[in-house]
Amino acid sequence: MKHYATQMEAARKGIVTEAIEKVAEKELMRVDELMPLVASGKVVICANKNHKVINPEGIGSMLKTKINVNLGISKDCKDYDVELEKVMEAVKMGAHAIMDLSSHGNTIPFRRKLTAECPAMIGTVPVYDSVIHYQRDLSTLTAKDFIDVVRLHAEDGVDFVTLHCGITRKTIDQIRKHKRKTNIVSRGGSLVFAWMCMTGEENPFYEYYDDILEICREYDVTISLGDACRPGCLADASDVCQIEELVRLGELTKRAWERDVQVMVEGPGHMPLDQIAANMKIQETLCGGAPFYVLGPLVTDIAPGYDHITGAIGGAIAASAGAAFLCYVTPAEHLALPNVNDVKQGIIASKIAAHAADIAKGVRGARAIDDRMAEARRNLDWEGQWSCAIDPETAKAIRADRMPEHEDTCSMCGKFCAVRSMNKALANEHIDIL
Amino acid sequence: MKHYATQMEAARKGIVTEAIEKVAEKELMRVDELMPLVASGKVVICANKNHKVINPEGIGSMLKTKINVNLGISKDCKDYDVELEKVMEAVKMGAHAIMDLSSHGNTIPFRRKLTAECPAMIGTVPVYDSVIHYQRDLSTLTAKDFIDVVRLHAEDGVDFVTLHCGITRKTIDQIRKHKRKTNIVSRGGSLVFAWMCMTGEENPFYEYYDDILEICREYDVTISLGDACRPGCLADASDVCQIEELVRLGELTKRAWERDVQVMVEGPGHMPLDQIAANMKIQETLCGGAPFYVLGPLVTDIAPGYDHITGAIGGAIAASAGAAFLCYVTPAEHLALPNVNDVKQGIIASKIAAHAADIAKGVRGARAIDDRMAEARRNLDWEGQWSCAIDPETAKAIRADRMPEHEDTCSMCGKFCAVRSMNKALANEHIDIL
Repeated sequence: MKHYATQMEAARKGIVTEAIEKVAEKELMRVDELMPLVASGKVVICANKNHKVINPEGIGSMLKTKINVNLGISKDCKDYDVELEKVMEAVKMGAHAIMDLSSHGNTIPFRRKLTAECPAMIGTVPVYDSVIHYQRDLSTLTAKDFIDVVRLHAEDGVDFVTLHCGITRKTIDQIRKHKRKTNIVSRGGSLVFAWMCMTGEENPFYEYYDDILEICREYDVTISLGDACRPGCLADASDVCQIEELVRLGELTKRAWERDVQVMVEGPGHMPLDQIAANMKIQETLCGGAPFYVLGPLVTDIAPGYDHITGAIGGAIAASAGAAFLCYVTPAEHLALPNVNDVKQGIIASKIAAHAADIAKGVRGARAIDDRMAEARRNLDWEGQWSCAIDPETAKAIRADRMPEHEDTCSMCGKFCAVRSMNKALANEHIDIL
Repeated sequence: MKHYATQMEAARKGIVTEAIEKVAEKELMRVDELMPLVASGKVVICANKNHKVINPEGIGSMLKTKINVNLGISKDCKDYDVELEKVMEAVKMGAHAIMDLSSHGNTIPFRRKLTAECPAMIGTVPVYDSVIHYQRDLSTLTAKDFIDVVRLHAEDGVDFVTLHCGITRKTIDQIRKHKRKTNIVSRGGSLVFAWMCMTGEENPFYEYYDDILEICREYDVTISLGDACRPGCLADASDVCQIEELVRLGELTKRAWERDVQVMVEGPGHMPLDQIAANMKIQETLCGGAPFYVLGPLVTDIAPGYDHITGAIGGAIAASAGAAFLCYVTPAEHLALPNVNDVKQGIIASKIAAHAADIAKGVRGARAIDDRMAEARRNLDWEGQWSCAIDPETAKAIRADRMPEHEDTCSMCGKFCAVRSMNKALANEHIDIL
């Protein structure tokens, strides 16, 4: 019997858990390099004791950047098996975490199915599920109701929970006074805010934070401190509301660490490109290096239909500047529930952003596959290129759709192919272009 | 009769041309702010005297970032009218420049059609066209043949020509010695390199640079100094070959400016994200602030099929760090000739990158449309959102495909819509979620 509550406590006590061993191996690190990062909170390993099938991953700025995919049961998609298939497909495509944002019916069976069958980290937003779970009007829910849902999710094996602990009654005045262009755009945050407005009470996730810590400690649930005030447009970025909440999240991070509870901090949001690196740095100082989990950032507001691209730009910059975990954004963001193709496009864009960032920040081994791709390109080795491609099927289909005249080129340049010309020139061969 | 050869000479002589006036108006600048930038070479206005229908644009790091689209007649698309339709569609979608990379048949009629009918800046790559123009084996062409094609393009009204003047016979040894993973991937650059290898002669675009300057001065053709050694993979980025060529391009820039010839400098290519800003800075110092025209940069090598995204990430960072002109990259890059949809995807990704960069570097008026979008979102004003969207048709189609239950929300969040909850909370209304 190993005497520890959480991975953080284990690391602090010098106990090498199976999860720590596995994560170290995946990250090409020695266990003794990883242990102090887990002990200090700079790396989290989200692995609920009741999530038996988990294939553990570490999240931290010096590890490979991880990506999250949001899925769940909705009125439009009520079939548990179909949704689980989507989950498994997302994991196959490279998602490290699945957030279950189910918004319809009895949410328990699907959540339990997830933790029973899915090897990726599972996250939830308990405040969001509370309304669904009790099927009662938001204003009638009590603080205890919310905390009970956190406990239910913990028992169900959820690895991390987004909790909007950082807004308080003071935030109500702040939001009213500062007249942000888009107020609060966090769904969970808006529910907490609305509940406070309707009941006149303090944020239960703030008021009963110690109770939450006990639950999280017991099951080793990582708290993902939600950013209710994340900017919903460029104009609101890095404003008083956002930064004051971040200050609160930093305080709450330290309180969690005192109980050996693992913590991530959530971040923007919509943000001009030139503010991203500064935000990553401020989060690091305020939150003591706790892993930063960002949604986007989206570097412009005007690209509905293409927010996987605006998010990939922001995400790549954020992760290269210290963010550890990217929530995917799909082309349907701001418009509709994503369909299967949107999910795929969102995952690939996030993977590109994460990988580009890993190369930039020198994550071990990250660039090896790019170097293999470069060799394959120089050798006009198409099979080699497919084996390195982030989505070989799509790449193959584009080439197959417009087959070249000459097998050793592609239809883009034909005999003008620079690779072909150079290979011949360097071999002192004659170059035929026409 | 105004006595000036080029826009640069006019600006230096204090002559306010019609083009300078129009560009100042578009950039929300006063003429007296723009004039010194054109005079010093920090802004170019690519406008051949024979391109009568041009709607002039300025290119420079403090102006709105411009984007270029490559099109042209090929074996697969020989119909001039169809290709011109694509050109006009690209301009409608936001392309500021069209590079005619025609690679088939008689290239003269299409080029002349372009400069007679298209209001966007027209660019070409004369070395590339030389092989087609003469329909002779590359090794049989003479230095004079190449220069004659430059003159032909100038007479035809081309606004800027990519010339790979920066590689010399020394480059042959350098490429052989440094064993880059992908040698030279610039098509034009590889042709110049191959020609030098086969003939044993010096690069004609370097050797006869003064003759080229006379031609460009006469017609006011802007030289786009090609980067033959732009990295074709992350591993080759910022290496000796690339940077030494950039040093040459800086020298050639100054020689052009002595003759009042306008110059842009072309840049990477494939490049790790963390090297981009440094490259922009070094180009600025070496080339005295001449506008930087980049292809990408692509921040990873492993995403064929998605290089419009890898290019948007790199392009946004490059432009925010000083690049002035982005060459679009389509999803078909590295694989095939882009089809109509690829062209569209490439243009939109480039526009997103350019716009995000303009906001980041504080280009005048750039963020106004984002602020309007934010207001429309807060008001759940869907018509307002479409009017600000970069591609309203695509955004509308996504929403229409999955219509919401409630008109005032979207199917993504339904009644969980944070905007709706907040609007009600701030109006002290009851919030119904179920």
